[in-house]
Amino acid sequence: MSVLQQKRLKPVSFTNVVIDDSFWSPRIQVNREQTIPHQYDQCKETGRIEAFKLNWRHGMDNEPHIFWDSDVAKWVEAASYSLATHHDPELDKLVDEVISLIASAQQPDGYLNIYFSVVKPGERWTDLRDAHELYCAGHLIEAGVAHFEATNKRTLLDVVCRYADHIHLVFGVEEGKKRGYCGHQEIELALIKLYRVTGAKRYLKLSQYFIDERGQEPHYFIQEKEDKKGFFQDFMNHLDDIKEYNQSHRPVREQSKVVGHSVRAMYMYSAMADLAAEIGDESLLSACERLWDHLHTKNMFITGGIGSTGKNEGFTYDYDLPNETSYAETCAAIGLVFWNQRMLQLECDGKYADAMERALYNGVISGVSLDGKKFFYANPLASLGDRHRKEWFGCACCPPNIARLLASLGSYIYSESMDDLIVHLYIQGEAKFDIHGQQVKLRQKTEYPWDGKVTLNLELERNDTFGVKLRIPDWCKNAKLSVNNQEIDMNDRVEKGYIRIEREWKSGDTIELNLLMPVERVYSHPNVRQNASDAAIQRGPIIYCLESADNVESLHKISLLKEGELTHSFDDSLLGGVVTIVGDAELIDDSGWDHKLYRTEKPKRKPYQLKAIPYYAWDNRAHGQMRVWIQEGEK
Amino acid sequence: MSVLQQKRLKPVSFTNVVIDDSFWSPRIQVNREQTIPHQYDQCKETGRIEAFKLNWRHGMDNEPHIFWDSDVAKWVEAASYSLATHHDPELDKLVDEVISLIASAQQPDGYLNIYFSVVKPGERWTDLRDAHELYCAGHLIEAGVAHFEATNKRTLLDVVCRYADHIHLVFGVEEGKKRGYCGHQEIELALIKLYRVTGAKRYLKLSQYFIDERGQEPHYFIQEKEDKKGFFQDFMNHLDDIKEYNQSHRPVREQSKVVGHSVRAMYMYSAMADLAAEIGDESLLSACERLWDHLHTKNMFITGGIGSTGKNEGFTYDYDLPNETSYAETCAAIGLVFWNQRMLQLECDGKYADAMERALYNGVISGVSLDGKKFFYANPLASLGDRHRKEWFGCACCPPNIARLLASLGSYIYSESMDDLIVHLYIQGEAKFDIHGQQVKLRQKTEYPWDGKVTLNLELERNDTFGVKLRIPDWCKNAKLSVNNQEIDMNDRVEKGYIRIEREWKSGDTIELNLLMPVERVYSHPNVRQNASDAAIQRGPIIYCLESADNVESLHKISLLKEGELTHSFDDSLLGGVVTIVGDAELIDDSGWDHKLYRTEKPKRKPYQLKAIPYYAWDNRAHGQMRVWIQEGEK
Repeated sequence: MSVLQQKRLKPVSFTNVVIDDSFWSPRIQVNREQTIPHQYDQCKETGRIEAFKLNWRHGMDNEPHIFWDSDVAKWVEAASYSLATHHDPELDKLVDEVISLIASAQQPDGYLNIYFSVVKPGERWTDLRDAHELYCAGHLIEAGVAHFEATNKRTLLDVVCRYADHIHLVFGVEEGKKRGYCGHQEIELALIKLYRVTGAKRYLKLSQYFIDERGQEPHYFIQEKEDKKGFFQDFMNHLDDIKEYNQSHRPVREQSKVVGHSVRAMYMYSAMADLAAEIGDESLLSACERLWDHLHTKNMFITGGIGSTGKNEGFTYDYDLPNETSYAETCAAIGLVFWNQRMLQLECDGKYADAMERALYNGVISGVSLDGKKFFYANPLASLGDRHRKEWFGCACCPPNIARLLASLGSYIYSESMDDLIVHLYIQGEAKFDIHGQQVKLRQKTEYPWDGKVTLNLELERNDTFGVKLRIPDWCKNAKLSVNNQEIDMNDRVEKGYIRIEREWKSGDTIELNLLMPVERVYSHPNVRQNASDAAIQRGPIIYCLESADNVESLHKISLLKEGELTHSFDDSLLGGVVTIVGDAELIDDSGWDHKLYRTEKPKRKPYQLKAIPYYAWDNRAHGQMRVWIQEGEK
Repeated sequence: MSVLQQKRLKPVSFTNVVIDDSFWSPRIQVNREQTIPHQYDQCKETGRIEAFKLNWRHGMDNEPHIFWDSDVAKWVEAASYSLATHHDPELDKLVDEVISLIASAQQPDGYLNIYFSVVKPGERWTDLRDAHELYCAGHLIEAGVAHFEATNKRTLLDVVCRYADHIHLVFGVEEGKKRGYCGHQEIELALIKLYRVTGAKRYLKLSQYFIDERGQEPHYFIQEKEDKKGFFQDFMNHLDDIKEYNQSHRPVREQSKVVGHSVRAMYMYSAMADLAAEIGDESLLSACERLWDHLHTKNMFITGGIGSTGKNEGFTYDYDLPNETSYAETCAAIGLVFWNQRMLQLECDGKYADAMERALYNGVISGVSLDGKKFFYANPLASLGDRHRKEWFGCACCPPNIARLLASLGSYIYSESMDDLIVHLYIQGEAKFDIHGQQVKLRQKTEYPWDGKVTLNLELERNDTFGVKLRIPDWCKNAKLSVNNQEIDMNDRVEKGYIRIEREWKSGDTIELNLLMPVERVYSHPNVRQNASDAAIQRGPIIYCLESADNVESLHKISLLKEGELTHSFDDSLLGGVVTIVGDAELIDDSGWDHKLYRTEKPKRKPYQLKAIPYYAWDNRAHGQMRVWIQEGEK
């Protein structure tokens, strides 16, 4: 076993975690009661579910789209997670029905894809670059694994195993196999999940093949285009570099900079981290670390959103973080969570949990409306009033992605290692750990993210000595810690964002952590030209924004006073209950312009009281402008 | 004669003006010696000139483009103006040769268009919306008029009269005629020029028909699309509103807001102003005034550039003036000069001359490199270092447009009315006026735009009483005036931007005007969100910018001090001789970031000395960033 494998943590699965949290539980409830049924309805109404009957024929309306399988698969995955934590016979039955339909579409050889069965039969695997065929397979596999984990039923798992076995016969370096890989990474991480649940090494190896083969020369996609004389799904032909777009510009171990489509990148890096762990591959870990660094220190919005432009749905160049036109796709922020959660298991470094938390509390949940029925695809950091969530999309990747993340949130909170029980996120509820052969129960009590006080209670079968590691978030400059009311000196004891308390624990031991949570102003690196002279407001993990509903219509006219006080208070009646921030600010005085566009007299500013709300909650009231970065004066 | 027609001024033609100016003469010389020959070479090399031989056949390379006729026509127009002010037998011969080729392409019925003669014969006038057929005709007509005015030769004029006569047979409200008009306005203003030089009223009426018919229902372009089942040049199908794009969304007299493609708009408004003058149509004048107001008070860059996005090469919404992505096409700034020059003849209001001057000294001449051989299509107000002039374009409208404007600059300096001699622009040289039956010569001496001192000498055949009107630019807050060394009190005597001195003038009288020209900071209307907290630097009519060549690479890191002094000095050796501005500023200190993208400590600023150069001269040295709007601190 390599050092890498020894250090490795194990996430505590959502099946061993109960969330009972004033912030997250209502969201998970809305997800279960509104979002998941709403998304089933959307899939049903748009023909995505019926399409598995393979009844569509040329000439008919509503031609199945290349992404459809994945939309339904992600719905099954989300519904399965929900079934694991919340018994619901009706949903269980509905999932079984959908799974039957999916299973009915499987071909005798194991192949399973709507589009290539009815729209382009006979053209399987001829457009790997753009047609999302292996991507859809990946989502079906993830659904099969989730359904099995949640319900113990093998119905979909067996289907996707047969499909994966078929894919294994088609792809590989062996004579007679295709040496291709998918333009949209996804199957790589799905196959690792399938390996973990089945123990079948061939799935791990197939994942490794896809990762290893990517970006090798002669380049598969160049050859593919020559063979076909073009692509039938050539919707990215406006891009300068289609190889960078799908991260096949060089072998993955040689990559150091995040480029191209941000969701593809996140899914690939997630698979790389998984593989690094499974096969103990330091070169994959090094690549992940380089890429992580490049992303998080030069290319991430303060909300955890990533992807600076819609042109390639992805990255542009270092420090280019536009606010009105930020792409910051919901799926990409979710992908960032996936990747960071995996990195965190490889090395228990708070920077990974900080990034995961940043995305979760901001750029991920901004993707869904408070009522659970409307979704952002792109999550801009400023809006002129014309950006609103929609009920569904033709390419509907984001809505079920957020549904599956919320339904499985339990898996992101804790890890365990040989000797440690580790708390990454502060979310009220219970978790079961397996440590030194006994089950340890941890009860977490907190009003996070609105308050930084966290109380942890341990329940053990027998007294035992082990470590409890608690994350001290990057945003927190002042924390207090006590065990059984005895204060623990934290000086110099926080290592890589965690404090470890080792002692002989007994049932009933109580740990109290108090993360002081003042309102802070945050500044961007000076290389970010879009935010020069601007500040953002943050409290705890929450990034704030201004909305016209609480302020004037034209938000760019508001400026923060350098020394102005910002105060917070909880408003139970607003946006499902949020801490709002008010403070002394200034508003530009736009009088006296006498019908001119330019003048030599500097516009004056007058006193103004601003009010900010959490970014994630924007666009849930009357339409108007929104803005995260606010100009800050010198006085 | 209507009041409108009585008030009307007459511009003094370039044929009566000699420019001998330290700023403009070198530019006109470069235009004559470099730009005009360079553009001939480009037209020749790209096949545009040979194409008039109509030898192209399907299957051959280098298919003639729908714009080609206009590129060559604009070159003939520019070369003709140049011949009028600078004798050049070789150029004269070259122009004659090109005109022979153009003439040889004329069909027996008078029709003349390369594309529809060889690429789509038989499809004449079937794609008025996109195919630029009447637009090309307009440019040929302008060339014919210019060539005749410059050389007194009728060779091209006769050709275009025959073509115009043919068009007159095809278009109109009469039974059997097409009720169409061009998607790209241009022929409207060209026909008025043709009317003025020939006196043939049918050309005026045809222009009026095109203006009157535009935007009427049933809508011609809708009908046209139905007839053809689509357009073969459907390159604008991504636009939300194709009618607004070409300003046919309603009849022109009902238009109040500038919309759509900015060059089309400027050419149309120019024709509307011309028509208002020629037919005394107050409703056209009112529309022009409304549109002028909307454009100049809500939609014009500080450089006189217009067009906020490349998406429609035109307007977006009020106060949307982005800097990095400003379109500000060179042709549009030139069109703005055309329109304002026409408005100025309708009403001698300095606001028109101010706008004309703003564009001329900034957004127009930024379009050409100092060596006369490279051109900007779009003129952004900020560049990250990747925007550079090019030698030519596939759609090469801008290069010959700037050539024809520079070659005819004389026509923009002066006007005359019944009793007044009027100076709009301060450019050294001589002009001949026809006033009260005698020829009055005016000699202007100035180092404008670098110095605001202007000396005017009059030479008369006999003493006479009339008015001399001198423009007091909007940018000038402090001017002094004397006649024959006797100071004239200017208090309350400036009306609509002009001061009028009426007296009995005699030969040798000298007027001295001193326009004080301090360095100023200019602010945008607070509704312009892109420039909130920013200032631009202006001195006289010149807008300044920062370039990396004189500063740090990342220009957004520089901020002006509110009270910092800005001083100017002339640098003979820089960029052909420019006044540069230096001053105390601040530079953001980007140290201490410890590999982070966000932090709670506000970045400090350290003292910095900035250096600004005229905007028009940017991108003539080493590649780097450029920026007009500079953040200004509160101290």
